[in-house]
Amino acid sequence: MVLNYPNGKPYSHKQSNTFQQKHKSKKSIIYGNRGMSLEQEINQSNTYYLESEIAVIHKKPIPIQIVDVDYPKRSAAVIKKAFFKTPSTTDYNGVYHGYYLDFEAKETKNTTSFPLSNFHLHQIEHMKACVKQNGICFTIVRFVKQDELFLMPCSLLFQYWDSQENGRKSIPKNEIEKAGFKIEYSLKPRIPYLKYVDLLIKRIEGENNEQTRF
Amino acid sequence: MVLNYPNGKPYSHKQSNTFQQKHKSKKSIIYGNRGMSLEQEINQSNTYYLESEIAVIHKKPIPIQIVDVDYPKRSAAVIKKAFFKTPSTTDYNGVYHGYYLDFEAKETKNTTSFPLSNFHLHQIEHMKACVKQNGICFTIVRFVKQDELFLMPCSLLFQYWDSQENGRKSIPKNEIEKAGFKIEYSLKPRIPYLKYVDLLIKRIEGENNEQTRF
Repeated sequence: MVLNYPNGKPYSHKQSNTFQQKHKSKKSIIYGNRGMSLEQEINQSNTYYLESEIAVIHKKPIPIQIVDVDYPKRSAAVIKKAFFKTPSTTDYNGVYHGYYLDFEAKETKNTTSFPLSNFHLHQIEHMKACVKQNGICFTIVRFVKQDELFLMPCSLLFQYWDSQENGRKSIPKNEIEKAGFKIEYSLKPRIPYLKYVDLLIKRIEGENNEQTRF
Repeated sequence: MVLNYPNGKPYSHKQSNTFQQKHKSKKSIIYGNRGMSLEQEINQSNTYYLESEIAVIHKKPIPIQIVDVDYPKRSAAVIKKAFFKTPSTTDYNGVYHGYYLDFEAKETKNTTSFPLSNFHLHQIEHMKACVKQNGICFTIVRFVKQDELFLMPCSLLFQYWDSQENGRKSIPKNEIEKAGFKIEYSLKPRIPYLKYVDLLIKRIEGENNEQTRF
């Protein structure tokens, strides 16, 4: 069962943290920020937010299709065969000050644009559905070569996704800079993305008020 | 690696849908409602809510610890060895009219009370953290022998959980009837639980207004 993105690229699952730590690839050492993947840094930030009672955000487990499980006597069940499934949602969600947050974290080695092939259709549809329910959706994008981090509102992603048929297949970095927020690293948490979520919420609620007023 | 609940009972993971369908046990046929598990009925209801653009609620994948993965040439990766992990959150979450919802679905064969051993500490702590962020948390409880379904607010669960050291280890059914909402089955969706979530939200917001006023 080979899974492909809608663009025909093979689906590459994300490995679990422990698995990743054990089998750290060369790539993540070369491009990783202090050897930590974006995912690890966001997980650490989420732990900080959780312990400080600021927000409850979790990464969803990797969806798998279990084919065979062994139940040995007097010990834990062992999965003997399973496949990775294409996720039907984004990686992260949770609650912050009564707001539902839903987001992806993505890295690119490109320096001037962010390829749309980083997403698959299901994720876009999921984010659109969440926005209709007044959820706050975005992507945390890292340009690894410059080590620059942005919070990109989903509105920009939708705009480029919906027009890719007759247009470009990537979002220019300067558009992300204009429509998004540049995230500055901090000590605790490492990626203080909620600070920028506050700005995004203010902007969205401002727009909604505008729409109601006129 | 044997996982136990805090009460010493062995942790029993929930199997994935497909796996469950393939290996349908006798038990689920005897006690199941029309042969469908509570989980399957809630998943169906969530699909209905999603397709009708009423809410975006998903069951989280089962968390697993991957030990060994095989990457055969020209075909999909195969997980050769993995273990079930104790989930650190509840099973379901999502967004509904701007509200963050977070809940568990549990069945009991007891007829007069709902055993607290259905939960583990992590889930209670998770729900408490979500409530602090103004999330809406509850449990959908089915008394399988009577085939009765309730939406139980997390406040009742917390009350019994926090006093179980010196008290009883289960929540009396009549307390669930008083503090919760009896869910009546419908055709579409099968379990129209959001109708009762509306009532719960009204009650919570009423209480908050009371607290602000006095």
